[in-house]
Amino acid sequence: MEDLMTKIIKKISTPLISLIFLLNMSSTGMADTTVSAEVSFIFNTLLFLICGFLVFFMAAGFAMLESGMVTSKSVSVICAKNIGLLSISGIMFWMVGYNLAYGIPEGGYIGKFIPWSDSSAVDTGYSDGSDWYFQMVFCATTVSIVSGAMAERIKLWPFFLFAAILSGIIYPIVMGWQWGGGWLASIGFFDFAGSTLVHSTGGAAALAGAIIIGPRLGRFTKSGSPAPIKPFAASSIPLVTLGVFVLWLGWFGFNGGSQLAMGTADDAIAVSTIFINTFLAGAGGVIGAAIITRLHFGKTDVIQMLNGCIGGLVAVTAEPLAPSPLAAILIGTVGGLIVVYGTKLLLSLKIDDVVGAIPAHLFAGIWGTLIVPATNSDAVFSTQLIGVLSVNIFVFIVAYIVFSIMKVTVGLRLSKEGETRGTDVTETGVIAYAIRD
Amino acid sequence: MEDLMTKIIKKISTPLISLIFLLNMSSTGMADTTVSAEVSFIFNTLLFLICGFLVFFMAAGFAMLESGMVTSKSVSVICAKNIGLLSISGIMFWMVGYNLAYGIPEGGYIGKFIPWSDSSAVDTGYSDGSDWYFQMVFCATTVSIVSGAMAERIKLWPFFLFAAILSGIIYPIVMGWQWGGGWLASIGFFDFAGSTLVHSTGGAAALAGAIIIGPRLGRFTKSGSPAPIKPFAASSIPLVTLGVFVLWLGWFGFNGGSQLAMGTADDAIAVSTIFINTFLAGAGGVIGAAIITRLHFGKTDVIQMLNGCIGGLVAVTAEPLAPSPLAAILIGTVGGLIVVYGTKLLLSLKIDDVVGAIPAHLFAGIWGTLIVPATNSDAVFSTQLIGVLSVNIFVFIVAYIVFSIMKVTVGLRLSKEGETRGTDVTETGVIAYAIRD
Amino acid sequence: MEDLMTKIIKKISTPLISLIFLLNMSSTGMADTTVSAEVSFIFNTLLFLICGFLVFFMAAGFAMLESGMVTSKSVSVICAKNIGLLSISGIMFWMVGYNLAYGIPEGGYIGKFIPWSDSSAVDTGYSDGSDWYFQMVFCATTVSIVSGAMAERIKLWPFFLFAAILSGIIYPIVMGWQWGGGWLASIGFFDFAGSTLVHSTGGAAALAGAIIIGPRLGRFTKSGSPAPIKPFAASSIPLVTLGVFVLWLGWFGFNGGSQLAMGTADDAIAVSTIFINTFLAGAGGVIGAAIITRLHFGKTDVIQMLNGCIGGLVAVTAEPLAPSPLAAILIGTVGGLIVVYGTKLLLSLKIDDVVGAIPAHLFAGIWGTLIVPATNSDAVFSTQLIGVLSVNIFVFIVAYIVFSIMKVTVGLRLSKEGETRGTDVTETGVIAYAIRD
Repeated sequence: MEDLMTKIIKKISTPLISLIFLLNMSSTGMADTTVSAEVSFIFNTLLFLICGFLVFFMAAGFAMLESGMVTSKSVSVICAKNIGLLSISGIMFWMVGYNLAYGIPEGGYIGKFIPWSDSSAVDTGYSDGSDWYFQMVFCATTVSIVSGAMAERIKLWPFFLFAAILSGIIYPIVMGWQWGGGWLASIGFFDFAGSTLVHSTGGAAALAGAIIIGPRLGRFTKSGSPAPIKPFAASSIPLVTLGVFVLWLGWFGFNGGSQLAMGTADDAIAVSTIFINTFLAGAGGVIGAAIITRLHFGKTDVIQMLNGCIGGLVAVTAEPLAPSPLAAILIGTVGGLIVVYGTKLLLSLKIDDVVGAIPAHLFAGIWGTLIVPATNSDAVFSTQLIGVLSVNIFVFIVAYIVFSIMKVTVGLRLSKEGETRGTDVTETGVIAYAIRD
Repeated sequence: MEDLMTKIIKKISTPLISLIFLLNMSSTGMADTTVSAEVSFIFNTLLFLICGFLVFFMAAGFAMLESGMVTSKSVSVICAKNIGLLSISGIMFWMVGYNLAYGIPEGGYIGKFIPWSDSSAVDTGYSDGSDWYFQMVFCATTVSIVSGAMAERIKLWPFFLFAAILSGIIYPIVMGWQWGGGWLASIGFFDFAGSTLVHSTGGAAALAGAIIIGPRLGRFTKSGSPAPIKPFAASSIPLVTLGVFVLWLGWFGFNGGSQLAMGTADDAIAVSTIFINTFLAGAGGVIGAAIITRLHFGKTDVIQMLNGCIGGLVAVTAEPLAPSPLAAILIGTVGGLIVVYGTKLLLSLKIDDVVGAIPAHLFAGIWGTLIVPATNSDAVFSTQLIGVLSVNIFVFIVAYIVFSIMKVTVGLRLSKEGETRGTDVTETGVIAYAIRD
Repeated sequence: MEDLMTKIIKKISTPLISLIFLLNMSSTGMADTTVSAEVSFIFNTLLFLICGFLVFFMAAGFAMLESGMVTSKSVSVICAKNIGLLSISGIMFWMVGYNLAYGIPEGGYIGKFIPWSDSSAVDTGYSDGSDWYFQMVFCATTVSIVSGAMAERIKLWPFFLFAAILSGIIYPIVMGWQWGGGWLASIGFFDFAGSTLVHSTGGAAALAGAIIIGPRLGRFTKSGSPAPIKPFAASSIPLVTLGVFVLWLGWFGFNGGSQLAMGTADDAIAVSTIFINTFLAGAGGVIGAAIITRLHFGKTDVIQMLNGCIGGLVAVTAEPLAPSPLAAILIGTVGGLIVVYGTKLLLSLKIDDVVGAIPAHLFAGIWGTLIVPATNSDAVFSTQLIGVLSVNIFVFIVAYIVFSIMKVTVGLRLSKEGETRGTDVTETGVIAYAIRD
């Protein structure tokens, strides 16, 4: 079956893939390294720490992106959610997540429920703690993706509860399947830095949540078309912009650090290539969204340009090393277009994703993962498809069940009155913008 | 006397301390380093530069935190204060501060009033300039802490004058006591990255200033209770949030760089551990403040979550290497709770600390310094107490005297009319938010 | 003629120059390096990547600076311009720019129109890709400078077209003259990190654009004096402040990375010195602008302090290694003063530079380049003058021609009605700040 599917898809996508193949970077093979084990250990650890703090800072990027995208009566709670989810994710990932992912048996399905502890040694090639830090901020990124989609109507503490479950259990399980050496790794799935494992996981959970909680009051008219945008206008475009720039910055750490080593010249070259492709894919996403919104909808939609950037970045995350520069641009451009049309699709389905997280992370993540074979000849399309389907379906179903249980137990959604007054007044009692002339 | 005090405190804090002791990280001893002197020199220098620019960026964090926390008529001046104090601090620290701290005789009290100059050599293990840069941004951090507490009523240039005195004289003196090898270092005081030396110093100066300048007009009713918060509402919660994320990011440099070396595998492991504990303590502070405000006051106070993060970070700064992950979380959580109740305490004392700098930096700094013996068995509680008392009392008294002299000479406070119109119109003539639909 | 000019200028500037000469840092010569080629390769590559992501982040700094400086009806489009120009610049620099600059014959005038490709090898001393990344973000910085000056009236897509021409052709040509080993390098021009090549290039293009497009409607009264500032008030001072802090942060990468190497102790010392001088020059610019606006105009102008910082940073960029700390402070202070009086000058000429890009980047860049001989005895004043004149005149003329052609073909300026409604409504249909109480 795998082979058949591969054939079908290869046929369909041949023209694009051929083009990209031609443009692949030639490998720059070098002699064996001359770097001593300890120096290499320090370089590798440094890579994790530097890339780790860049990814850490993505939490600020999500906070700004989402603060700017929600209406001005729901900004304080978005801030509370973002700093809260980062804190919860980190603690959960220490308590259970890390070993749930990395304690997995080879080719297996789930690891061990024990807290992480340090066992650094020079022979492991890097400090254990630096790896934990780097993996932890990935976990937090996954959870960040969910917070925006359900904004303006989800209650704060149920969201925190879900954040704990996603960061402590759901994400670590799928992470272990691949990066812990579980069954997906065994069948040869490729996902370099997590188009599927991180971004689609976050996006699939967000989709389940957005469906269960339903749209904001008044978001869609009775006839089903989106209500006039005015009462749902983004509170601050510069904050959205800042958020995207911070995310783009963080993505150099996200993808670059996923090389997992900087202790040889070859690794240093690889990290450089990853930085370039990460940049170019984001750029492609911006330009794709700019052109298509101008041509198709008349105005150049700055929000779609910004979300298109995310879409491009997510798309290249599954394979940021193999593509040539042109391939990276193309992969990112398609990611940007997917965001634009994915946003339209969700609106037509009356799914209210406040910040556009689902198109940018789920849809673009699927695209990025499936296109890997076009630039990395070791990847097989059918295996990519199995990975995409298994992760997304697993996450969606589990998240759907968790949200459903929460809905009938602790409750997910604010009261109508609370939502109308705004989450900020209702939940935190702090107005977000108290600006007077 | 020391022994007696130690006994008493140990008795009181035994349960918590025992718990934390049990959870301490086991040391990961390694063989002697194999890294050459020059490679080690480069790694150490790189650590100072990277961590230095992270701490530099904390200046932006303070600027955003404070801009968001003041009312909208005092934002432009806060911005002027923050960029101004950074500039002044850096120049003062070059002109006198560095050698006032590092030119101190062993076990002494004060160094030399001479400008810093470079005398790098490979045998010193790192470039002199990188160390100056790293220490300078610490100095600027100390001054940043003061600017928010006295906001909305202090005049700009008197503040700049105090910034010069604090950065050029007061901070370097106490810094020299410990990090310059002065008398506190001689008696065995522990303050890894400056819970006391930096954060309490800033906080104690802020307390002196807030007392002398008095609360904002109308901040407290005649009966002494805080006035309705509405006219004193924070101008922008997303900017406060951004500020805290930036500070958290910078704190990895603040604590991580205080390892002072990255040139061996052991140092690299230590820096990794510090990153983890710094993260977890901040997370603990967030969660502590979130839970306690929700349970105790009904709403989850986002501002306290954000300041709680700072409190957790300040608390772990005195010893970010020795604690186990669980200990770091607990130390940070208590730091967060201290912020919440410290804020209440100040209000009940009618001290108007606009941004909550005193609870977060002074109170949490005291806690963090005193709890060091619980995770680092080389530290002695009574010595920690001596350090806390001597630094805080010295700084408070000197700052009190300086502010008092300034009050009767150059004047500290805006006119009533000027304060009512707002510092922005009065001092800089630039409205902070000119937003029209 | 060169010698005569040198004599005249030396005479005029002798007192200042002598002072600065006396304070130059003494060279810290060291023995030959003991670092292996591969370790050195990794360090050098790491320097490019770290400094590169810092410079990348300057794009966010420009976006925030400009968002805050324009009026609130033109903020969304500024955001679109900044993320768009970064994307366009990166792609253009890959497609043509890099080899147009580096493919230049020795002492020549123009390189080759071919895309960049990777040819990394250990003997080259660093990964090719890391160099491309570092140079690319410089190119984007050049373009960023232009976007603010013409804000609030230029059409979006014509701006993007100019961004492509500037990043793909104009900047690479002048870059090649010096950094590609072209004719300016051959005659001994000094421009360490681009006071002229980057900042004046951006500023000269901005000047040409601002002249051709003319001032905003109503910006100047019929009599020629600036209109009351109120309707032209900056939308958000904290965002401007954030922008400047981010730029200052990025400048450590901009200047530090321009050492181009970190693989020996000497290089590590040099990078440290550059960090210090970069910091001190920015500080000097802030303080210079603060004092002069307070003394000369009555109020301490926060906007001039912020732009003064940029002026100081631009000024030290031509030579951030040779100056002593005091010299760096003085060079930066003059840069700050140039910004203050340069802003006045432009207003008196009725040139409407919305964000003050021309004084900060063009004027301060000229100052910084001409003063190099005062701290670096290898530089010759007349050669510096030739470099300044040739680059600025070339860029101004080419940009003037390009803008003129665009004006009569695709059109540069919004309709009067469109400008009155604001670029945001007209071009992107997205209101920047939708804030309601």
